[in-house]
Amino acid sequence: MSATCAPVSVDFINPFLNSAITVFRTMLGCELQRGKPYLADSVQPKHEISGVIGLSGKAIGTVVLSLEGPVALKVAEAMLGEAQTELSGDVVDAIGEVTNMIAGSAKAQLEHLNMSVSLPSVIMGRDHKVAFPGDIRPIAIPFDSEWGPVCVQVGLREQVD
Amino acid sequence: MSATCAPVSVDFINPFLNSAITVFRTMLGCELQRGKPYLADSVQPKHEISGVIGLSGKAIGTVVLSLEGPVALKVAEAMLGEAQTELSGDVVDAIGEVTNMIAGSAKAQLEHLNMSVSLPSVIMGRDHKVAFPGDIRPIAIPFDSEWGPVCVQVGLREQVD
Repeated sequence: MSATCAPVSVDFINPFLNSAITVFRTMLGCELQRGKPYLADSVQPKHEISGVIGLSGKAIGTVVLSLEGPVALKVAEAMLGEAQTELSGDVVDAIGEVTNMIAGSAKAQLEHLNMSVSLPSVIMGRDHKVAFPGDIRPIAIPFDSEWGPVCVQVGLREQVD
Repeated sequence: MSATCAPVSVDFINPFLNSAITVFRTMLGCELQRGKPYLADSVQPKHEISGVIGLSGKAIGTVVLSLEGPVALKVAEAMLGEAQTELSGDVVDAIGEVTNMIAGSAKAQLEHLNMSVSLPSVIMGRDHKVAFPGDIRPIAIPFDSEWGPVCVQVGLREQVD
């Protein structure tokens, strides 16, 4: 199967990396420190909460924003302007919205792919994994922050006309 | 928040219900018995494996196919033609592909919404939940089968031009 694997082009990484940094800075007042992006197929990160959103157009793909619970509470606190103590519906909505903003900002930078975003969904469950199709090699972009680690995974496949 | 909730129209349920039945019958040789669809926001089902795929066009949405591990092994066995004993990459790919086929077949029946599908992703983790945005009221369509229960959740929001 490796012969048909399509690694995400480096051209696709920077828009998502930059979007994550910009959204966290401008919407949440949180500075992300970028780590080294890696191919995520062999080491699938496990997390407590993941925002998942689809992309379709001249490329189809998925963006996954993964966080631990305490980081998700901080994200929601910054979005909502009040302390959050449990993974409520408001926290879920905040994570979905941040995922949506990262994907939306990145797609605007990838205008030639003419992509649109789907509805975000938010996965909750300790140590869940989000797997991509076997012929996609998603890139994981790890970040650190004052709130804790954050990871953005992106898998894209360009469509052949 | 309930004032802004948009329940999935009943017009949207049947295409997904019929697609699930048809895909399981024709691709997997498995007859699904439909249960009663319900609004999934209050009772989010927990599962071991979920295939998630986004839709975008004149409506944006998400389709989630949820299964327990033993059912996922049976699905993959039927797709691949050989016994499956663990949740391998091949099993993950089979679940993603079945999710893709259900969403693809349903979108073809909802031609007026001009939707395209994203890449499927597959969530693994005991007792994970898949939550939709708070302003979406997804419909859960439960099915029973000789392999065990299967659930399809659909959340859609029509886009205003």
